[in-house]
Amino acid sequence: MADVLAASKPVDWRALDPENTLYMDLAAGRVVIELAPTFAPLHVANVKALAREKYYDGLAIVRVQDNYVVQWADPEAEKPELARKIQHAQRNLPAEFERPLDPKLPFTPLPDRDVYADEVGFSDGFPVARDPRSGRMWLVHRYGMVGAGRDNAPDSGGGTELYAVIGHAPRQLDRNVTLLGRVVQGIELLSALPRGAGAMGFYEKAEQRIPIKSIRVAADVPEPERTQLEVLRTDTETFKQLIESRRNRRDCGTGIPTSIRTDGKIGEPTYGSFKAGE
Amino acid sequence: MADVLAASKPVDWRALDPENTLYMDLAAGRVVIELAPTFAPLHVANVKALAREKYYDGLAIVRVQDNYVVQWADPEAEKPELARKIQHAQRNLPAEFERPLDPKLPFTPLPDRDVYADEVGFSDGFPVARDPRSGRMWLVHRYGMVGAGRDNAPDSGGGTELYAVIGHAPRQLDRNVTLLGRVVQGIELLSALPRGAGAMGFYEKAEQRIPIKSIRVAADVPEPERTQLEVLRTDTETFKQLIESRRNRRDCGTGIPTSIRTDGKIGEPTYGSFKAGE
Repeated sequence: MADVLAASKPVDWRALDPENTLYMDLAAGRVVIELAPTFAPLHVANVKALAREKYYDGLAIVRVQDNYVVQWADPEAEKPELARKIQHAQRNLPAEFERPLDPKLPFTPLPDRDVYADEVGFSDGFPVARDPRSGRMWLVHRYGMVGAGRDNAPDSGGGTELYAVIGHAPRQLDRNVTLLGRVVQGIELLSALPRGAGAMGFYEKAEQRIPIKSIRVAADVPEPERTQLEVLRTDTETFKQLIESRRNRRDCGTGIPTSIRTDGKIGEPTYGSFKAGE
Repeated sequence: MADVLAASKPVDWRALDPENTLYMDLAAGRVVIELAPTFAPLHVANVKALAREKYYDGLAIVRVQDNYVVQWADPEAEKPELARKIQHAQRNLPAEFERPLDPKLPFTPLPDRDVYADEVGFSDGFPVARDPRSGRMWLVHRYGMVGAGRDNAPDSGGGTELYAVIGHAPRQLDRNVTLLGRVVQGIELLSALPRGAGAMGFYEKAEQRIPIKSIRVAADVPEPERTQLEVLRTDTETFKQLIESRRNRRDCGTGIPTSIRTDGKIGEPTYGSFKAGE
């Protein structure tokens, strides 16, 4: 895999779109999230609206469940008199669990079987499943994916509570929760947090929560303060070679990485991918 | 799942065998590891011999790679003059990647397909794959599994370096590395450690390493200092119900847990399982 990346050309990489990139700034550093408007247009628009009205600033990471998720939200969400008010965004949205299969959208399939879907692969960097029989496609839960927490009702989410996967891909959540993005840098700022001792990994004491300094749309951040990085394109011959290099490998590694590079320098891969083809 | 566990009877649980249980004591607490002599008899015997000659005491966790493994070893292993000496145990052993399929060994299959093996299921608590055509069976890499690090030669491991899986099940390692046990308690003491910034997650500075106070065979630890816990049997009707409750569930959770209980009290499930049936 290192050889494939070393042989990659500038055209194999792409910059993130600042309008669809979030920066979650914590005291420990920045988590960079790429949003997926193609799959969750309503949720992405709402999360950006929430970020732009500074809804998340001063909220906190409230839940870290081992081998599962990190979740951030308003700790006082259940108390009407204390809960953070929403100004222009929406609290709840219709579910965006899946969307019509559009054959014009880029799709680089994985060659191996999957136990959750007829076809799995990558579309514009995102892990995607497709079912030609039902004519549907959807984002899948893998390491680093970001989704909108919800209650039992499918339309009870909207982006005020978000989670990132920090464990084995919880594919049982596919099409049960709206995924809207993926962490492309800084996942270790989430995955190495102390686990919550309460039920489902919630922190039991307020002082254990990790404050969120701010969540910003990258386009709103002055250019010098933006994180400069490129991500590997997934619609290239290079990426196909990368899949094959991971599919039949003998060394140790972390799965197909979301390869990123800064200033043209290829970083350590930060996280793994589908179970098939690792 | 909670209902299945709440309805379980004492006979659904079993105590760990102190002769096949390791305690890794860190400043932060104890990691309890159940050994698998049925699948790796030479490695288990050697790791116990190493523990009994106090080989591991004062060594350290040297590597924490995000979404992959935590590894502990002699930090000076590459320097002959400084490396910890072995007294009676072995440094290297023949590989124990797989073993003959013995139909008399307990096996509770998962009903769903797997992309890495013909059959997957549980045997005495351990995640196991079987291939009836080749007549082989083996332990599989899932969250919390413990294996023996090795160099390129298959017989270059032996247990002086051990790793635990802290990420998405790296099934590509199945039959490539000798697995010898599983963490049944304390995985969060490993999974929430700071990630190493060096290549493959190795800590770059000596002071970043996490010292190992001791690794002991539970049978050698005075009774009052032992960790009292029971694990859920995997050869019962209760466990089959548990699989089904995870297989067709609508709530959120972490996969089939290695359920443990202390003093008859069922603890929070600590980690997930196979991708199929989650």
